Amino acid sequence: MQFPDRPVIAVVGAGAVGCYYGARLAQHGHAVHLLLRGDYDAVRHGGLSVRSKDGDFALSPQQIHAHADPHAMPRVDLVVVALKSTSNDLYEPLIRPLISNGTAVLTLQNGLGNEDRLAQLFGRERVLGGIAFTCINRTGPGAIHHIDHGLIRLGEFAPDAAPPGRAERIAAMFRDSRVPCEPVPDLHKARWEKLVWNVPFNGLGAVMDLATDRLLATPAGRELVAGIMHEVVAAARANGANVSEAIVQKMIDNTATMGAYLSSMQIDRREGRPLEIEAILGEPLRRAESRGVPTPRLRSMYEMARAIG
Amino acid sequence: MQFPDRPVIAVVGAGAVGCYYGARLAQHGHAVHLLLRGDYDAVRHGGLSVRSKDGDFALSPQQIHAHADPHAMPRVDLVVVALKSTSNDLYEPLIRPLISNGTAVLTLQNGLGNEDRLAQLFGRERVLGGIAFTCINRTGPGAIHHIDHGLIRLGEFAPDAAPPGRAERIAAMFRDSRVPCEPVPDLHKARWEKLVWNVPFNGLGAVMDLATDRLLATPAGRELVAGIMHEVVAAARANGANVSEAIVQKMIDNTATMGAYLSSMQIDRREGRPLEIEAILGEPLRRAESRGVPTPRLRSMYEMARAIG
Repeated sequence: MQFPDRPVIAVVGAGAVGCYYGARLAQHGHAVHLLLRGDYDAVRHGGLSVRSKDGDFALSPQQIHAHADPHAMPRVDLVVVALKSTSNDLYEPLIRPLISNGTAVLTLQNGLGNEDRLAQLFGRERVLGGIAFTCINRTGPGAIHHIDHGLIRLGEFAPDAAPPGRAERIAAMFRDSRVPCEPVPDLHKARWEKLVWNVPFNGLGAVMDLATDRLLATPAGRELVAGIMHEVVAAARANGANVSEAIVQKMIDNTATMGAYLSSMQIDRREGRPLEIEAILGEPLRRAESRGVPTPRLRSMYEMARAIG
Repeated sequence: MQFPDRPVIAVVGAGAVGCYYGARLAQHGHAVHLLLRGDYDAVRHGGLSVRSKDGDFALSPQQIHAHADPHAMPRVDLVVVALKSTSNDLYEPLIRPLISNGTAVLTLQNGLGNEDRLAQLFGRERVLGGIAFTCINRTGPGAIHHIDHGLIRLGEFAPDAAPPGRAERIAAMFRDSRVPCEPVPDLHKARWEKLVWNVPFNGLGAVMDLATDRLLATPAGRELVAGIMHEVVAAARANGANVSEAIVQKMIDNTATMGAYLSSMQIDRREGRPLEIEAILGEPLRRAESRGVPTPRLRSMYEMARAIG
């Protein structure tokens, strides 16, 4: 069964990231249904306004459909999952009502384990994963600020089971909607590559409350970050993801040019919000330890992050 | 050679802790010479004023001798070292001029390695160590606030080489000066016991910027603290200090009654001052690793603390 050219789309967990990508798709003529919580009334009555480095725009309530209850939503061709991973226990009640024959489920969430859980619940043939390299904030009810970047790298969770060409068609749909998007043949590897960055900068960011520039300011800090990155690379390789050691120095060099960047987990700590500990630290740690890969820094960071409470 | 009843005393590195203990000794008639830096002018002209839960008092410049240069000080019977351990490279220039035959050197500094270094420089027979359980702040030039506690546990670094009865005589001198003080037969063990508390609460306090109450607020936090404490106990035992595992639960229970206590290293981080990383984390870590004791949490904390810069 081929994935349709003009799919009906649901965005589940429409925070800043979900709203932005949903808005871009709606702007380009797609039928997009947002499942919202706090911003439901605002979007239902006032639509969405998007400030973006790629061009500002606004959508009326006729152009983007706001919902508060998944049972009131249509069954769709594509579910885009943008929940915070700390709410993954809501997969079943929020996503099940949207699914019919042929529905694809694309998670844009951080970290490891999200696709696996979706596959268990809804079937591995449905699941895709996307890694969003972006910086998007909510600035008010129904108001989104897309600050920088925006690339999505996406791939099939189970290429052997998925309809042929689906990832490419979805990627093309995003690109036609002004969202840079590239399909990746090896989602597993792409996820681990992202973790090489996310584990140290989200982990240390949250645990130490230090931004990227402070972490890279001293030789001791750079050694620490590199040490953690090498643990993640070793874990990736032991888990069949052919991540190169060379990525470590490249990421450190790139990050050093970024200035004082606060990772999402550091911001969550400062705001007293739940931290995405399991997806970003816990699941990589468990996969490392299950293969006997020594990851003492990752384990310590994980224990410290959990102690933040 | 017996240690004199009325020794002439020098306090080197007279910050809050050094000034308080020096002031108590001077208050009770001892000749006390303070080697000061920032507060030299204030103490030289105005003396010291002490607010203390054990009774306020003031000393005139005639009652306590302020110095800025060790070469202008007399040779003494007892040097009390209260430097911050990050300034231990000043041992030689600051202490050497004060030493003659029979001079004892008592360090009240935090952590491990201070006595060893003093012994290397000045002879192991001179050296004693004291562990100060206290809470003392500087509140202004020449003004000290002794908030709580005050016990010193002190012992000989090399009991086989030291003059017999010296630790007991020094302890009695402190007690006669309103400072609770007990001699300990095994300084090495007492130091490691203090580290069981200092390593997690100073280490995590600095690295995570969390006070004791936050660290103990969740089961995950208590497990983390206990995990670190068990590493220190194992390191102690491997290094010949017969520290009991039972100390772990006892210290956690005691600390849980203390409320929000900020360790000195956490305060140093907040104030942007140098952290006592090597004495409190680095030296215990090296002694653990030299004996093959697994201390992954201690190592990670050490690496993180060094990254604070």
